Amino acid sequence: MEEETQRAQASPEIQARIRASFERQGLMRHLGARLGHIGPGFVKIVLPSRPEVTQQDGYIHAGATSAIADSAGGYAALTLFPDNTAVLTVEYKINLLAPAVGDHIEAVGTVLTSGRTLTVCRLEVFTVQGAERSLVAAGQQTLIRIHGRSEQ
Amino acid sequence: MEEETQRAQASPEIQARIRASFERQGLMRHLGARLGHIGPGFVKIVLPSRPEVTQQDGYIHAGATSAIADSAGGYAALTLFPDNTAVLTVEYKINLLAPAVGDHIEAVGTVLTSGRTLTVCRLEVFTVQGAERSLVAAGQQTLIRIHGRSEQ
Amino acid sequence: MEEETQRAQASPEIQARIRASFERQGLMRHLGARLGHIGPGFVKIVLPSRPEVTQQDGYIHAGATSAIADSAGGYAALTLFPDNTAVLTVEYKINLLAPAVGDHIEAVGTVLTSGRTLTVCRLEVFTVQGAERSLVAAGQQTLIRIHGRSEQ
Amino acid sequence: MEEETQRAQASPEIQARIRASFERQGLMRHLGARLGHIGPGFVKIVLPSRPEVTQQDGYIHAGATSAIADSAGGYAALTLFPDNTAVLTVEYKINLLAPAVGDHIEAVGTVLTSGRTLTVCRLEVFTVQGAERSLVAAGQQTLIRIHGRSEQ
Repeated sequence: MEEETQRAQASPEIQARIRASFERQGLMRHLGARLGHIGPGFVKIVLPSRPEVTQQDGYIHAGATSAIADSAGGYAALTLFPDNTAVLTVEYKINLLAPAVGDHIEAVGTVLTSGRTLTVCRLEVFTVQGAERSLVAAGQQTLIRIHGRSEQ
Repeated sequence: MEEETQRAQASPEIQARIRASFERQGLMRHLGARLGHIGPGFVKIVLPSRPEVTQQDGYIHAGATSAIADSAGGYAALTLFPDNTAVLTVEYKINLLAPAVGDHIEAVGTVLTSGRTLTVCRLEVFTVQGAERSLVAAGQQTLIRIHGRSEQ
Repeated sequence: MEEETQRAQASPEIQARIRASFERQGLMRHLGARLGHIGPGFVKIVLPSRPEVTQQDGYIHAGATSAIADSAGGYAALTLFPDNTAVLTVEYKINLLAPAVGDHIEAVGTVLTSGRTLTVCRLEVFTVQGAERSLVAAGQQTLIRIHGRSEQ
Repeated sequence: MEEETQRAQASPEIQARIRASFERQGLMRHLGARLGHIGPGFVKIVLPSRPEVTQQDGYIHAGATSAIADSAGGYAALTLFPDNTAVLTVEYKINLLAPAVGDHIEAVGTVLTSGRTLTVCRLEVFTVQGAERSLVAAGQQTLIRIHGRSEQ
């Protein structure tokens, strides 16, 4: 994956729209997640490691990993749509490839194809410990566009 | 699905083992989830609706829905194994069928097949509002058994 | 699963429509598959075991198993729609639970939910050897309805 | 995706082993599929368009698309293992992104991670018409390694 500095940014309007929607997600706030890079068809969400997001062995819970992956994909889809549009997750599949340990994890949603009704995203989650970054989850997501309904 | 009262209970030892593991899941506690019925190859987890688990429209976030579904499947698998065994989620797929509104949601994990290495579970999530109960998510999960490693 | 004799039949018109569509599926004919029971939201497809559908060990190939499961789900969805409607598979996920050996395999598609745009089906594949029948694959499928387009 | 000419080739021994296994897959031969590039953790399978692999509208059937994707992933995994090893598909998920029309389709399996027991592959299927090539399906697959069992 390219570095953030090399990636295109979404327009200020789109970034503002996505930040406003993210703020309303009680779960993202409750988990302690925050938005990272917002590009066209590409969104990153960061989740710091802390006891509130762990499973029984102290690793980050697959449910928390999936939750930020799902949101990253949903917002990646939303960057491609006009203002009066919402998206809903139809389904997703995710492989948990390795235990998620480290300072934080980063979920990256990337649009593979976006049609009139359906959008398909690739989901990747990396764990970051100091300078090291490795893939801990990978998946794929289908979203449906809800026309004429604002996220606001 | 049969009523809980008609379902077999897991042995007290297995129930105690699963409750102890669940208590160590920081995420489940943080979300406010609690264990319901624990039967052989069948576990239910309940999540009350509250602002901390919502997405931007006020429905329960797909990530929270998935998190309790994933845990329900994992514990359903664990009921079938001896004491010195752990399970890890390999992957799961989940369809979000309807917005999750209501007093609480219930995730049900049911073992479809359980082999020496892999277990496959069916995942179902219902929303409950008063006497009404309807399916809001359905999925399927693959788990791997870790031999000779206690959950304790 | 209930016996076929206990299951409702789809109307003769719907059965005829589905049989006509099935006949046009070059792949189903090429594999040697045939339609079984056609009920409302429930369709069965049977595939006899023969060398043309095997993988390298002589078992039925996961691709053949998946192909008839995918078609069974698609036709199960189609039984619920009016004449001028088509369905397309959006995606599916399938677990191969056991090697598919035996006289034939049977794929069963069952509609879980059917909305204005999307339908979700449960997919099950059984292997049948004499009087024995066991689950060899299980999955879940999402389909999209194409309005105003006849299968004919 | 890089061009084949730029991609590393698997060793002659590995290529021979995979070609021998592919030859024994009755379904691949019956569909008319053939092996393309065989690199370390990367295998391509090509399927010419013909009536025997179509669905009711004349497009290539999702089952045929999935069958070659599944095989491509399985052989991609196998390139990384020693001689006395087999792999079985545990599960896969695939999105059908666009109707598969054209002269032929190409399935590409790429290993994402490969562990002692499980391997996870990315699956992509492209349709090729003259000089044009576009993505028609994308998925993800989990495989299990069977130790001490030769494919031969």
